[in-house]
Amino acid sequence: MTMTTELTRVLPMTFEDAERQVTDVLKTESFGVLTRIDVQATLREKIGAALEPYVILGACNPRFAHRALSASLAAGLMLPCNVVLHREADGVRVRAVDPVQQVKPFDDPALVTLAEEVRASLERALAKL
Amino acid sequence: MTMTTELTRVLPMTFEDAERQVTDVLKTESFGVLTRIDVQATLREKIGAALEPYVILGACNPRFAHRALSASLAAGLMLPCNVVLHREADGVRVRAVDPVQQVKPFDDPALVTLAEEVRASLERALAKL
Repeated sequence: MTMTTELTRVLPMTFEDAERQVTDVLKTESFGVLTRIDVQATLREKIGAALEPYVILGACNPRFAHRALSASLAAGLMLPCNVVLHREADGVRVRAVDPVQQVKPFDDPALVTLAEEVRASLERALAKL
Repeated sequence: MTMTTELTRVLPMTFEDAERQVTDVLKTESFGVLTRIDVQATLREKIGAALEPYVILGACNPRFAHRALSASLAAGLMLPCNVVLHREADGVRVRAVDPVQQVKPFDDPALVTLAEEVRASLERALAKL
């Protein structure tokens, strides 16, 4: 199962190095990591579930966020942009959310235009990995 | 502009009370708040933007999250479930993300079924406000 228009890469390195590199390339496009969820630790603690290392980073470019919220106060439902990392056989899979898919339910041309910009920015960041 | 299928309420109370009540009703459906972004403070600090009080809560029911990730490791792109609060003239607007809209790009029947359960659970929680 794959998301139809995913932004994704596999990095042949340790999880820690992958997370550091992802954080760094996001920064080059002015995305700061506002939130970090250690999914493996959270699910182990809450329900005793076993999962490979899995982290959800909440990345936010404040200028994009401000424009989105100026277009619609409901836009916070799509913020921040998730970038997830998890271990695969040959490295660490990195996936970023596709903002263009995310704004579809809003049916708002201004948000679609903005989402296309955000997507291009995330693509530039991930291309540096 | 409105999201086509939003889960939303307006609470006639202070922001602090609204956030506390939202956190409490989410708990009744086993959603814990894993992340909290003070958007007003963040945008003021990063780009000097002025915004009314605006908070994004990242709510997660660990059993739903585990089922979603078991169906697809890409499902972390939609986690946690955002619940946003912001001030309006007559109170505090609360909006929860619609998981059914969120999973559409995945085109996966198992995730749609799960998203319908998650949506019903969020609806039950918000109905208690």
